[in-house]
Amino acid sequence: MIRVFICGGSGYTGGELLRILSKHPNVVVSGVTSEKSAGRSVVELFPNLFPYSNLIYEPLQVHTILDKAEVFFVALPHAKSQEAVHVLFSKGKQVIDLSADYRLRDVKVYKEWYRVPHRYKTTLKNAVYGLPEIYRRQIAKANLVANPGCYPTGAILGLYPALKNKLVDSNSIVIDSTSGVSGAGRTSDIRFSHCEVHEGFKAYAIATHRHTPEIEQELAALTKKDIKVTFTPHLAPFDRGILTTIYARLKKDIGTEKALDIYRKAYAEEPFTRVLDRGMFPDVKNVRGTNLCEIGLTVNMRTKTLIIVTAIDNLTKGASGQAVQNMNIMMGFDEMTALDSVALHP
Amino acid sequence: MIRVFICGGSGYTGGELLRILSKHPNVVVSGVTSEKSAGRSVVELFPNLFPYSNLIYEPLQVHTILDKAEVFFVALPHAKSQEAVHVLFSKGKQVIDLSADYRLRDVKVYKEWYRVPHRYKTTLKNAVYGLPEIYRRQIAKANLVANPGCYPTGAILGLYPALKNKLVDSNSIVIDSTSGVSGAGRTSDIRFSHCEVHEGFKAYAIATHRHTPEIEQELAALTKKDIKVTFTPHLAPFDRGILTTIYARLKKDIGTEKALDIYRKAYAEEPFTRVLDRGMFPDVKNVRGTNLCEIGLTVNMRTKTLIIVTAIDNLTKGASGQAVQNMNIMMGFDEMTALDSVALHP
Amino acid sequence: MIRVFICGGSGYTGGELLRILSKHPNVVVSGVTSEKSAGRSVVELFPNLFPYSNLIYEPLQVHTILDKAEVFFVALPHAKSQEAVHVLFSKGKQVIDLSADYRLRDVKVYKEWYRVPHRYKTTLKNAVYGLPEIYRRQIAKANLVANPGCYPTGAILGLYPALKNKLVDSNSIVIDSTSGVSGAGRTSDIRFSHCEVHEGFKAYAIATHRHTPEIEQELAALTKKDIKVTFTPHLAPFDRGILTTIYARLKKDIGTEKALDIYRKAYAEEPFTRVLDRGMFPDVKNVRGTNLCEIGLTVNMRTKTLIIVTAIDNLTKGASGQAVQNMNIMMGFDEMTALDSVALHP
Amino acid sequence: MIRVFICGGSGYTGGELLRILSKHPNVVVSGVTSEKSAGRSVVELFPNLFPYSNLIYEPLQVHTILDKAEVFFVALPHAKSQEAVHVLFSKGKQVIDLSADYRLRDVKVYKEWYRVPHRYKTTLKNAVYGLPEIYRRQIAKANLVANPGCYPTGAILGLYPALKNKLVDSNSIVIDSTSGVSGAGRTSDIRFSHCEVHEGFKAYAIATHRHTPEIEQELAALTKKDIKVTFTPHLAPFDRGILTTIYARLKKDIGTEKALDIYRKAYAEEPFTRVLDRGMFPDVKNVRGTNLCEIGLTVNMRTKTLIIVTAIDNLTKGASGQAVQNMNIMMGFDEMTALDSVALHP
Repeated sequence: MIRVFICGGSGYTGGELLRILSKHPNVVVSGVTSEKSAGRSVVELFPNLFPYSNLIYEPLQVHTILDKAEVFFVALPHAKSQEAVHVLFSKGKQVIDLSADYRLRDVKVYKEWYRVPHRYKTTLKNAVYGLPEIYRRQIAKANLVANPGCYPTGAILGLYPALKNKLVDSNSIVIDSTSGVSGAGRTSDIRFSHCEVHEGFKAYAIATHRHTPEIEQELAALTKKDIKVTFTPHLAPFDRGILTTIYARLKKDIGTEKALDIYRKAYAEEPFTRVLDRGMFPDVKNVRGTNLCEIGLTVNMRTKTLIIVTAIDNLTKGASGQAVQNMNIMMGFDEMTALDSVALHP
Repeated sequence: MIRVFICGGSGYTGGELLRILSKHPNVVVSGVTSEKSAGRSVVELFPNLFPYSNLIYEPLQVHTILDKAEVFFVALPHAKSQEAVHVLFSKGKQVIDLSADYRLRDVKVYKEWYRVPHRYKTTLKNAVYGLPEIYRRQIAKANLVANPGCYPTGAILGLYPALKNKLVDSNSIVIDSTSGVSGAGRTSDIRFSHCEVHEGFKAYAIATHRHTPEIEQELAALTKKDIKVTFTPHLAPFDRGILTTIYARLKKDIGTEKALDIYRKAYAEEPFTRVLDRGMFPDVKNVRGTNLCEIGLTVNMRTKTLIIVTAIDNLTKGASGQAVQNMNIMMGFDEMTALDSVALHP
Repeated sequence: MIRVFICGGSGYTGGELLRILSKHPNVVVSGVTSEKSAGRSVVELFPNLFPYSNLIYEPLQVHTILDKAEVFFVALPHAKSQEAVHVLFSKGKQVIDLSADYRLRDVKVYKEWYRVPHRYKTTLKNAVYGLPEIYRRQIAKANLVANPGCYPTGAILGLYPALKNKLVDSNSIVIDSTSGVSGAGRTSDIRFSHCEVHEGFKAYAIATHRHTPEIEQELAALTKKDIKVTFTPHLAPFDRGILTTIYARLKKDIGTEKALDIYRKAYAEEPFTRVLDRGMFPDVKNVRGTNLCEIGLTVNMRTKTLIIVTAIDNLTKGASGQAVQNMNIMMGFDEMTALDSVALHP
Repeated sequence: MIRVFICGGSGYTGGELLRILSKHPNVVVSGVTSEKSAGRSVVELFPNLFPYSNLIYEPLQVHTILDKAEVFFVALPHAKSQEAVHVLFSKGKQVIDLSADYRLRDVKVYKEWYRVPHRYKTTLKNAVYGLPEIYRRQIAKANLVANPGCYPTGAILGLYPALKNKLVDSNSIVIDSTSGVSGAGRTSDIRFSHCEVHEGFKAYAIATHRHTPEIEQELAALTKKDIKVTFTPHLAPFDRGILTTIYARLKKDIGTEKALDIYRKAYAEEPFTRVLDRGMFPDVKNVRGTNLCEIGLTVNMRTKTLIIVTAIDNLTKGASGQAVQNMNIMMGFDEMTALDSVALHP
């Protein structure tokens, strides 16, 4: 039994972490922080989490929590995560950071997109990008894992086999994503109120979303090339899930069946990545509350374009589920522990 | 006062036509047909349409309705529309066809995508594509208007100024659309039941949707070039609206402001097309129940891509509203008659 | 052409007022106030209201607006409305107050439920309760109309014919209502965010809702008896509408058909109240965006209970539509002016 | 490891059974029937149920399945269940019937409400009503359990402590329930399409719903009195869950705190029934996908009425979860096996 501690547990990723960990037989949650909700119980914020009726939010004091756990999940806002992660890591703790602070390896790119400098370059060098399908071996040895962003998870898993196998022109990539409302976090911002979102659909942060450099960094690492992608997120009136539709010009003259073969092989050993049969495409509904990434694809022969569609739950595979998956790998647990749920239908 | 008759009025486009026409001071609805619902009243199917409590569906007998109206809206399923339109047109009636049967000028393309032959080529030659922003003068003189498809309306209006002004590479166009559920029609298909759609989001008919050749035909007409587009529709859990996000490589080195200027000029005189201010993007919620097409755009300088987003209500500007707009033009009424509604919010 | 001014126009009732007034041929909106949004345009808050692109919110200074209009709608929060209404009324303006401040005739009851004293008893005496189906003659002569609350509108219209005709035991009334989310107003309260409301359903303010004494006051006025009702509101994941299901023990041994007759007679001359046929019951969907109140009823012979169901749009008949209806009556306009819309379906 | 077989597994209750059983360590699903979907795999109908990719629907032939399992869940339509249950029970199988066929002990009442005669009175006498909170001991010894209806589960659990403790007048009970759309089953009926349900809310089957006699039977059994209740179901635009708001006149002069004490005591030992703290009321969102019944209550002192609100997931505690709970009790498994899930939020 190991102890885990959650820094920043009053948001939806914090709630999802607690939900998943409540089913994990090898861990106990020893504490959870929140500045705004300090003194309140987890159940006050998340009435679904009745197993935690005695867990009370405390303000974050990073030096006093060191003895409380072996593994720390950090789900603080970007920029605020930097220091907490640095201290925990420096003291030899296992750290999984769900913020953006340790994802971008180039501090100049980080500063350009997040508008703050990175103050812990040495710690940053020790961070492993926590996408197990690509970095599982490194994660197993890491003490600091930078848990991927939600959009990058769906986009990179969709493009990985195509780029690895040089199927497509890496300069032609268009990534069109749609997220449910929980992607905005547990927020009182009126723009995410029911009345403003329901029966609506729109694009936002067009050409400027901060997940763009994260996607580009990982695609560049795969291809050893500088890559720029066109990435457009949309907001839809459902709560959980990201669907990503990816367009890339084919470099090779292959059909749908052959492309599917390449994807099936690439993910043959993966527990959470499911390549669907020809003619089948994913629906966010089918992965809700699960750590799955479902993938469908087709070749548009008329325009020589490979079209890949992926679906994840943004709070699970796109955040807290993947964080627990990373913990399982780091701690030597079975990778699927606490992550084998089946989606509700309907 | 002119009389209008609706062939095929039990679907959602039929209901929307009736709703709009109920506010039209120059017309009276003299009849409406439905095979399945013959003998039932309009209000039984559409409880909102209480002004039509005495209007009863009748089976379609095209030769007996000729005397009943001056203008005929035909909202029959594709293939079934061919003959009815032909007869009505041959008898000198004004016809607005909401089906796909008279949209494609090339009968080979029609047969390829709709899997049935076109039997009325001469009548087809007389059909004008009913997108007033492009064909207003021809519509004013036409006796047969082929009302555009919902996706093509949003896509063509989004691309028209860019292609007319040769801003983008016409071989690079990706059209990514999302429709509300009413796009599937008034159907008992279980795939569109609340339980199957709610909290879901998915792509469908990838690379195979029948609106593809219609978009290509009109873009080719604009550019005098053969154009192939990559078009992907998605289904989202709202009822009305289509958002279309369009990606095209820039040929000219222009910025967002200049591109917006070109769009503003192109649509300066249009009553239903609104180009939004820089940094603003449309939301289907804002055009619900209106005949508006809202357009926003940005230039992604990093990838030299023009990104255009359009929003329409698929049942209004994407079908029945545009049909009434076409009737207004054909009959010499003020084009906005019965079409000046303001969207509900929320 | 008369000028109208809106005090407190940045909420959903303010937006709905502006939407309705934009179609009113006899009025022009001369100004609108908001403390929080002063200096911003109406369109910034309500992108649907593009006809008001030049209307800018101003802070409320009641003494400087007196010359700006003949009619004033006051949609301020309760307690804040008291003084503004008093000043406007004292200066001889026509005032329609959408707050709760002038609805309760007994200042003790007002203080008990709203926790503030009423400081303008004389003005209060001049207020007419703005339910035209009951007080049309008084409204026509009034200078100050207290526009009814949303729940009371649906409840009182549902009970009025039964109580007037002494069909039911006035001590047995249970009123079970369900409102859409817009009933909470245009609020950033996290409890009304999409993620908290969607796929949820709950009761709230059980036995304590402030609309209770308003319902009781009007039922008492109808029956000349002291009446206490059991009223429970619920929150459902739709945006507009209130459905009210009312239970009352029958005193007379009548059946459904006879009860329907009584309701049909009671509302025979009413333009906005529709009694549905036997076996038909209202759906909030059918009255969305309209000023209608639809009513269905049945007699449960097994328990000798009359069950009445009413549906209104809480923002229209439940607030701003009824306010315009009252203005139409006060100013001698046709009562349906600007209020003849037909609901969208779907 | 015992084998279970599902007769009628292509509906939502069948899918939910399979989902729950996929996590049950003591059972294996040996077969599942469907007439319409015979030959198709479970995953074709329920893409979420990927663990059953090799399970194929077969037509029901009750005599050939006897050797296939020890426990049979029967989820056939009412009237069709009668014979299958009878045969399975006669052959010594353990049977849990999710239909209505074995719930009503009086065959006259059954015929009156379901319009078909009951042909197996002797088998019916052996059926135990499967509400563990009341009949746990009988269920443990039963070979045939009639799984309760969804509405009755929420209504009876809400009234049980009040009636047992004679708090309320049993002649005054009003039960006002709201169900999500999955309560209509996996149906292609257009009335449950997204476009017809979304943004709507209505009452249905007022005073005539077939769950009425089931509720009355069990309340009568509790009180040893003939009881008639007024029961009104509503349909709301969410997928899962039933909220039931119950009104009953108090016979004793007690307050909320005392009433809560009585409820807490009544359910102190129950694993799935949670009485909420004073001032807290249930939300269907918090029990989605769980076997919980959450209960809140308040005393309305002004009208001497006890108001009880219960929330369940209609597919879980209201159907398949309760069926598995009954199986666990019948087979001597830990009652919570496979039923300890925590609701997603959001």
